[in-house]
Amino acid sequence: MKIQFKNAKILTMENSEIIDAHLVVDDKRIIYIGLNDESFGPFDRVIDCQKNLLMPGFKNAHAHSAMVFLRNLADDIDLEDWLNNIVFPREKHLIPSDIFHLNKIAYLEYLTSGITAIYEHYFYPEQSAKAAREFGMRTVLLGTYNPKTTSVDKLNELYRLYNDKKEDLVTYSIGFHAEYTSDEEMIARTKQALDLTHSSFFTHVSETKKEVEECLVRHQTTPLKYLISKGLYDNGGGLFHGIYLNDEEIKIAKQYNITIVSCPCSNAKLASGIAPLHRYLKEGINIALGTDGPASNNSLDMFKEMYLAATMQKLLLKTANAIPAYEILKMATVNAAKAMGLKDSDVLAVNKYADLIMIDLHAPNLKPTNDIISSLVYAGNKSNVVMTMVNGKILYEKGQFFLSESVEEIYHNAEIAKKRLEKARQK
Amino acid sequence: MKIQFKNAKILTMENSEIIDAHLVVDDKRIIYIGLNDESFGPFDRVIDCQKNLLMPGFKNAHAHSAMVFLRNLADDIDLEDWLNNIVFPREKHLIPSDIFHLNKIAYLEYLTSGITAIYEHYFYPEQSAKAAREFGMRTVLLGTYNPKTTSVDKLNELYRLYNDKKEDLVTYSIGFHAEYTSDEEMIARTKQALDLTHSSFFTHVSETKKEVEECLVRHQTTPLKYLISKGLYDNGGGLFHGIYLNDEEIKIAKQYNITIVSCPCSNAKLASGIAPLHRYLKEGINIALGTDGPASNNSLDMFKEMYLAATMQKLLLKTANAIPAYEILKMATVNAAKAMGLKDSDVLAVNKYADLIMIDLHAPNLKPTNDIISSLVYAGNKSNVVMTMVNGKILYEKGQFFLSESVEEIYHNAEIAKKRLEKARQK
Repeated sequence: MKIQFKNAKILTMENSEIIDAHLVVDDKRIIYIGLNDESFGPFDRVIDCQKNLLMPGFKNAHAHSAMVFLRNLADDIDLEDWLNNIVFPREKHLIPSDIFHLNKIAYLEYLTSGITAIYEHYFYPEQSAKAAREFGMRTVLLGTYNPKTTSVDKLNELYRLYNDKKEDLVTYSIGFHAEYTSDEEMIARTKQALDLTHSSFFTHVSETKKEVEECLVRHQTTPLKYLISKGLYDNGGGLFHGIYLNDEEIKIAKQYNITIVSCPCSNAKLASGIAPLHRYLKEGINIALGTDGPASNNSLDMFKEMYLAATMQKLLLKTANAIPAYEILKMATVNAAKAMGLKDSDVLAVNKYADLIMIDLHAPNLKPTNDIISSLVYAGNKSNVVMTMVNGKILYEKGQFFLSESVEEIYHNAEIAKKRLEKARQK
Repeated sequence: MKIQFKNAKILTMENSEIIDAHLVVDDKRIIYIGLNDESFGPFDRVIDCQKNLLMPGFKNAHAHSAMVFLRNLADDIDLEDWLNNIVFPREKHLIPSDIFHLNKIAYLEYLTSGITAIYEHYFYPEQSAKAAREFGMRTVLLGTYNPKTTSVDKLNELYRLYNDKKEDLVTYSIGFHAEYTSDEEMIARTKQALDLTHSSFFTHVSETKKEVEECLVRHQTTPLKYLISKGLYDNGGGLFHGIYLNDEEIKIAKQYNITIVSCPCSNAKLASGIAPLHRYLKEGINIALGTDGPASNNSLDMFKEMYLAATMQKLLLKTANAIPAYEILKMATVNAAKAMGLKDSDVLAVNKYADLIMIDLHAPNLKPTNDIISSLVYAGNKSNVVMTMVNGKILYEKGQFFLSESVEEIYHNAEIAKKRLEKARQK
């Protein structure tokens, strides 16, 4: 399918410039950006952008999509209470097909918010692969060693399987949940798998003060330093949250090419704290944004993440001039793509995958037009996303979904899973 | 016009219950809520709510609507720099008709976010009255003494004019900008006007630390205590922002029946700080939410305010169980209505004005359904607002506006005003 987007304003994210141009997509890729695209026709579809903005889709660098079943189930309660009495008693009854069905509600939400790729970290990653392919969502899986189901050899096999496939929506990387939930066996096996695959490594690090304090007791060092000492970051990678890194760790993060994936909404809602992004930025660390799971956020909305990322730094630094809007926009797009290894869908350019969104610049919240980039970060809302294209396919346009199954079907299957989990918990 | 909303879930905000019922609007008012509405027909229009939620519209208790022309013009710069080099050089060239035209962009945005009433505080309030009436937006004006244009007698006259009119969209109250911009003359005249009218009093109080410190130097007391000492709060009223109130002032605020209007987005974006709402709540103070102006926020979106109000308290208290969602929802609706004197459009009940909104509970960000009130606060988005009715008129429905003029016309007139202000500044 060859689609011409004409009369667009285009923010390629190669830089902060916004150009007036047309953009042509052929099958999965962008084949032209400019004003002289006559020779690329005929087009199967011509979309008049009416001076609306085309930009790369947002990349959600930290997701637990299937946790939608826990969304709004018990907010405003203490974190330990929530985990031990609400989350874990249900999660332990999850079966593989639950992930497949529950993920899709999150995918619908991603599309409405202009999110075109996710870094998925939850149970049964192969079910996430299946759901993502069927749905059309670009997904990076985080595979984890599991003595019962996933050996080092299996991790290696899966790594090859997903990453050697050309043109697949799904890629694979290796990590684990966190230092505080990993024993020596887990760490040793993960290290073996990383050495075999040369995969980068991702895990939760320093999300709470308690986590850091307990690690100090357990290992006489902080979580990041401990993981570094075990060689887990030898191929680089990233860490989720990173609120309580000390000065030495910040230098180490830079040195080891570690992306810090910040989840400002989750960190606020769970009262974890504010990550000092301004310091990471100063150190030259790659910073990406993620939504975290829908049960701890509770939405999957990159506009909300950008707004909180930007404004929390202002509160932290006590000055309105902390971190320019364009840096925040990079965290939600190109920086996240870099962390996720999505080299072919980071910016809008010829030969890149067509993972792109259209923003309605005529909506009242973006009017009058002064600075478009600033307006995306401070005034933007997911309601401004009028089209979301993943891998050359328009999956969402003007409030409608274009999928292989109906929204009602997705809700229905998720509801069945949710009810079963509820019942299983009560037994 | 008689409209039946059938098959609705209804959150009246009289309490936190959600009932399955129909709701009937006749002309400007709600005439029935229940399941047996046959006798109220025939209806001019029947709207099948399909189990979506009807609730009172949000009330924005602090707005400077016309500041849209400054939106996204210069974010991420120091507050003083922004005020002195960006805002004031333009504002001084504002003419009355600018307010009339610029306000309307904000009104459009209010409708998309489900805001049905605003507390308007900016130059030329009579222009805001004119714009609000023409547009159909419920508005409370904050009139201010001005030696050149608005004498005490004039304030009294306007107070009578607006408040004695039955069934008008516009009402009037009296206040001024802030302690730090008011001299003795201003304070004395305002007090006279308050005594004449028995109006409640509203002003900015303790928005920044600097403001409090400078007041201490100037008057050897804090802003609220100073204003109290001048008798300005003798009829109660409210204060905007209220971030840096001390323990004594918190008690005084309760004692004088002062509403605290919190603007958490603006306070974060301008790095002013986090108001300790949990303490005000504990003291039994009425707390309302406001967006502040679009140049310091930068959107006019009550979902964003609710999210920040809730999550900032969690960060401040370092616990996820700070302030239940329903309390936050009250701040954005009934509490704000109380502060604004909108006794007839606070909740959904028979004989109240039909200021109400419909929320699409079938949107993916609110799925699966667990706790609706919690989902509004933590997962809700203005994109979930599918209908906004003010004073019995549907002004916004499914992304379309139903107004006496076109959106393009509103943008065009605002653009002219914006360009003129820009040119005037450069001269």
